[in-house]
Amino acid sequence: MEAAVNDSLVKLDRDERGVVRLTLNDPQRFNALSAEMLAALQSALDAVARDEQARVVVLAAEGKAFCAGHNLKDMAANSELAYYQQLFAQCSRVMLSIQKLPVPVIARVQGIATAAGCQLVAQCDLAVAASEARFATSGIQYGLFCATPSVPLVRNMPIKQSMEMLLTGEFIDAATALHHGLLNRAVPAEQLDAAVETLVAAIVSKPRMAIRMGKELVYRQREMGLESAYQLAGQTMATNMMDVDAQEGAQAFAQKRKPQWSS
Amino acid sequence: MEAAVNDSLVKLDRDERGVVRLTLNDPQRFNALSAEMLAALQSALDAVARDEQARVVVLAAEGKAFCAGHNLKDMAANSELAYYQQLFAQCSRVMLSIQKLPVPVIARVQGIATAAGCQLVAQCDLAVAASEARFATSGIQYGLFCATPSVPLVRNMPIKQSMEMLLTGEFIDAATALHHGLLNRAVPAEQLDAAVETLVAAIVSKPRMAIRMGKELVYRQREMGLESAYQLAGQTMATNMMDVDAQEGAQAFAQKRKPQWSS
Amino acid sequence: MEAAVNDSLVKLDRDERGVVRLTLNDPQRFNALSAEMLAALQSALDAVARDEQARVVVLAAEGKAFCAGHNLKDMAANSELAYYQQLFAQCSRVMLSIQKLPVPVIARVQGIATAAGCQLVAQCDLAVAASEARFATSGIQYGLFCATPSVPLVRNMPIKQSMEMLLTGEFIDAATALHHGLLNRAVPAEQLDAAVETLVAAIVSKPRMAIRMGKELVYRQREMGLESAYQLAGQTMATNMMDVDAQEGAQAFAQKRKPQWSS
Repeated sequence: MEAAVNDSLVKLDRDERGVVRLTLNDPQRFNALSAEMLAALQSALDAVARDEQARVVVLAAEGKAFCAGHNLKDMAANSELAYYQQLFAQCSRVMLSIQKLPVPVIARVQGIATAAGCQLVAQCDLAVAASEARFATSGIQYGLFCATPSVPLVRNMPIKQSMEMLLTGEFIDAATALHHGLLNRAVPAEQLDAAVETLVAAIVSKPRMAIRMGKELVYRQREMGLESAYQLAGQTMATNMMDVDAQEGAQAFAQKRKPQWSS
Repeated sequence: MEAAVNDSLVKLDRDERGVVRLTLNDPQRFNALSAEMLAALQSALDAVARDEQARVVVLAAEGKAFCAGHNLKDMAANSELAYYQQLFAQCSRVMLSIQKLPVPVIARVQGIATAAGCQLVAQCDLAVAASEARFATSGIQYGLFCATPSVPLVRNMPIKQSMEMLLTGEFIDAATALHHGLLNRAVPAEQLDAAVETLVAAIVSKPRMAIRMGKELVYRQREMGLESAYQLAGQTMATNMMDVDAQEGAQAFAQKRKPQWSS
Repeated sequence: MEAAVNDSLVKLDRDERGVVRLTLNDPQRFNALSAEMLAALQSALDAVARDEQARVVVLAAEGKAFCAGHNLKDMAANSELAYYQQLFAQCSRVMLSIQKLPVPVIARVQGIATAAGCQLVAQCDLAVAASEARFATSGIQYGLFCATPSVPLVRNMPIKQSMEMLLTGEFIDAATALHHGLLNRAVPAEQLDAAVETLVAAIVSKPRMAIRMGKELVYRQREMGLESAYQLAGQTMATNMMDVDAQEGAQAFAQKRKPQWSS
C-alpha cells in the first residue's frame, strides 16, 4: 500500500524546533478527503509518530478551503457497501491516529471545513481559525448524515448545538464555533499564522515526554469513571515526576532559575 | 390503559409536510405533567413513532407557561412509595421516548419551564425559546431534588451551572440558558414561530431515513469510547450511503443539480 | 496519622446555620498543597462528613493566592517514586472526598489557583471568584503535566479549552473561566463574600436530606448511560418524596404556605 501513497497530496515540513507542518495540498478539489488524500495523510501521521524529534503538528491546507470532506464524486461513482465501509474505516483510522499521536495537533483553518473536514478540526487537540472561516456537517444536504463527524463533534460542543449542525447541515461562523468549544481562537486571516505560532511556541518550550504522557492521559481518563480516572492520573503523574525533566523543573523552581530540558 | 388516555390534554396536528405539532393543553394548570398528561403525551409520542409520514415534532404548549413539571397537589394527595415510583417511571418513559423517536423533536418554549418541564426542554433534540422564557429545576424549593431532570440537564449544560440550578432551584433566563447549551435559539416572542419554522424547514427538506439513522447514532455513540464510537458511526454511514436517497444526493452533487428525495 | 494533623493549616468555622468555612491557612506559601496541608484538609473534610449539622462548605483561602498547587520544593527534595505515588494518592483522596461529601462545597477564589489549586476549584460543586482571579494548570511549565488536575478540568470545561490550559500551562482570567464553565460567578473582589453568601443562603434554606441525596445522584448518574441514569434518578426521587420534608413541601405547595423543614 505505502508505495501507492501520493506524497504531493500532503506536504510535510519540519523545522529545527520539531514543528511539523502537514499541508493538505489538493486546493482545486478543496482538499477533499479522497482515498488517496486519506492514504497520504495517514502516511504523514505515521511518519510523525515515528519521528522522535517531532514536537507538535500544525495541520494546514492550501487554497481557499481547509477541507470539504469526502469526495462525493468518488462516492457517486462507487456504489458498493464494501467500498463505503473501507472508505469510512480508512477515514476513522486517520482521525484516531491524530488522537493517538504522541505530539499535539493544531488545526489551522481558513475558508470552509465541511463534513469530514469539520471532523478533522474537531478531532485535533487544538484549533485556530480565520474569522471568516465557516464550519458545517453538511452531509445531510446530500442525504448522508455526518455520522463519523458527529463522533468528535459531540465531544467538543454541547449536544443541542451539535444536533442542530448535524440535522440542518448549515454553516456556523468562526465566532459561533469558538463560543461552543470547536475552536481555541478565531482571528483575522492576517493574524492566523501568528496565533498558531503562539500555541506552537508554548508547546515546543515544554519537555516532549511530559506532553506525550499528558496528551494520552487526558483522553484515556476522560472515558473513565472519576475514581478510575484519578487512579490512572495519579500513577501517570508519579511516573512523569521521575523523569529527568520533571526533576530538573522542580529543582529549577526551588533554585529560582530557568529549567534546562533534556528533550 | 390506552382507553383511558385523555386526548384533549395533548393536541396532535400534522401538516402535509409531516410536521407534527404536539401541544400540551392544560394551560390552567400550567401544563403540569400529571399522570393523565404523561399518558396523553406518551400516547401522542407512540403515535408519532408509528407514523411513517412524520418528519419532525414541535413540542409546544398552550397558555402562559410551557410546563410547570409534576403536579405537586397530586403528589401531596398520594404519599405511597409505589405511587411515586410509578409516576417517575412513567415520566422517564416519556423522556426516553423523545430520544428514541425516529424524528427530531424541537421544544417551542414560552413562559416558564420548571422541574420536569425544564427536563422536557433538555430532553428534546433542539429547543427554541422566547426571550422572556425562564428555566428552573425548582423541586428543591419544595424539598424534592430534581433528580430525573438532572439526567438530561447535565447532558446539555456544564456541570457547575447544572449544579447551581439543581441546588438553588432558582430561575435562569433564556439568554443564560442559550449561553450554556440548553437552547438553540432565544428570540423575541413574536419571532418564536418563525425561528421554530426555520429549523423545521431545514429538517423536512432532508431524507427521512438519513435523519432517523443519524439521530439514533448520535446518542448511541455518545455513550461509547472513541474507538467503538467510530466503528459504529462508520458502519452506520456506510449503510446510509447504500440508501437510494444518499445515492441520489451523491449523483446530484456530481451532476451539479438539486437532489430529488424518495422519502 | 491523625495525631500528626496540623489543624492550624486549615481553619474550620461553623456558624449556627451549618455553614462550614474551611480556610487554607498557609498564605506565605500561597497555600501550597504540601503533604501536611493535604492531611489537614482531609481531616477537616472528614469532620464535615461526620457533622450532621453541616449544610454547606465554603472552601476559602488566606492571603493573596487561593492555592498554588503542590509544593515543588518538597517535590524537588524527595525524588522517590513511592513518595510521589503517595502524594498524588493523598491529593486524589482529598478531591474525591469533596465530591463524596454529603453537603455542597463552594470554592471562594481570589488571586491565583494553579495546578492542584485549579483542580480544587474544578472539583468543588460550585465556584465563585474575584474578577482578577486567574487560573492555570501550570505544571507543564516545570516539566510535570497536570494529570490529576485534568480529571475535574475536562469534566468542567470543553476539551479544546482544557487541552490548551494543560499543554501551554498559561493563565486564563476569571471571565474566561466563567465563560467555559469553571466558575459560577466572577465578581469584583469587594462583592466576593456577598456572591458566595447568596449561594450559601439558597442552599441552607433547603432540606439537608434532599440536597444530600441529590448531590450524590447527580455525579453517579452522570457516569451512566441514559436509561440506567433515569432508573437510578427515578428511584432516588421516589425515595426523596417519601421523606418528611418533601411531604411537607408538597403539602405547603398545595396549601399555598411556606414549608417548615424538619432538617
